[in-house]
Amino acid sequence: MDFKTEFKPLTVQPQEIEEKSFEMITEELGPHPFTEEQYPVVQRVIHASADFELGRSLLFHKDAIRAGIEAIRQGRKVVADVQMVQVGISKPRIEKFGGEVKVYISDPDVMAEAKRLNTTRAIISIRKAIREAEGGIYAIGNAPTALLELIRLVKEGEAKPGLIVGVPVGFVSAAESKEELAKLDIPYITNLGRKGGSPVAVAAVNAISLMAERLG
Amino acid sequence: MDFKTEFKPLTVQPQEIEEKSFEMITEELGPHPFTEEQYPVVQRVIHASADFELGRSLLFHKDAIRAGIEAIRQGRKVVADVQMVQVGISKPRIEKFGGEVKVYISDPDVMAEAKRLNTTRAIISIRKAIREAEGGIYAIGNAPTALLELIRLVKEGEAKPGLIVGVPVGFVSAAESKEELAKLDIPYITNLGRKGGSPVAVAAVNAISLMAERLG
Repeated sequence: MDFKTEFKPLTVQPQEIEEKSFEMITEELGPHPFTEEQYPVVQRVIHASADFELGRSLLFHKDAIRAGIEAIRQGRKVVADVQMVQVGISKPRIEKFGGEVKVYISDPDVMAEAKRLNTTRAIISIRKAIREAEGGIYAIGNAPTALLELIRLVKEGEAKPGLIVGVPVGFVSAAESKEELAKLDIPYITNLGRKGGSPVAVAAVNAISLMAERLG
Repeated sequence: MDFKTEFKPLTVQPQEIEEKSFEMITEELGPHPFTEEQYPVVQRVIHASADFELGRSLLFHKDAIRAGIEAIRQGRKVVADVQMVQVGISKPRIEKFGGEVKVYISDPDVMAEAKRLNTTRAIISIRKAIREAEGGIYAIGNAPTALLELIRLVKEGEAKPGLIVGVPVGFVSAAESKEELAKLDIPYITNLGRKGGSPVAVAAVNAISLMAERLG
């Protein structure tokens, strides 16, 4: 190395930092309404956001965790709404079961179709995902229009996702889209309010893929 | 399209949604301590997080905005600590001035060196960045160790970044690393407390590159 000064070697390994963080979260969160199988998702969302209010705002369909684990173990695709979610999701645990993490929003055909139809790339990318990733996990951290289109297609009987992780952040349509998701009787993870975002979607999927892996 | 049902055309364009969100933020935030040139960063951070507390926790070195704009207009590199930050930063406004957005953390030489020295890839990636992106903008949303190493190199006189956007999130070292950053007399944007993360780093850089572009 071409620096005059040298850093000190690590005294704490990254794995220990994560474990310590998780202990702090459990202690500070205190009593909570989540089940044992839901809690790893809550914990990892708080870890990614340092926001207990956001963690407490999470809502789970009763079959969400089981359905998410099954989708991963069956090698179903994970579909991200945006690239930030796609790159954040840990790949090895999904790929070992034959799955992959896809994002369609910047595909040339999606961009062309959105322009032609005067709509958002997010909406068109969801329609492409339904064709290519049926039964998969949909991780939506940014685009309320993507989530609303997915909900519409589910209601119309045209889509049957394995699990929807719908946690868009924002001031216009985000909270409303999540309220609509929470009315569906299909596996979902969402949260109420404006908060959410890419790291929340990533944390939820990574928590589930860890559970899928630990089943062996 | 091969769906039986068809979505409604958009009644509100994405650009209008962003403008409406920004208006809501200004109205709800009310009186604040930020200068006119700092406010676009605050506004975009709140837009990305829906978190007014996080927005209010931002701290700016007095030269931060001017230095960030200059770095972009001089075509300096923008260095992201992790891929989520790299993909989130808007590229065209940086590339039009000759800059680019780099991330070194998964480079094979960085991974090998971190293993050899028993340290984090984040630390080694910062050392590589200093060699390749001197005078650039450092956007650190995740890795406190990266920020601490950068601060150490600045103090030792071995690094001279154009602007440090240091907003790592987390329970161990994140808040401490940001307190250290806020003691430096070089251009920085940071926030106090545990919150932060990739979208915050992305929002800050995107707000600055927009200001750089608007100067024409």
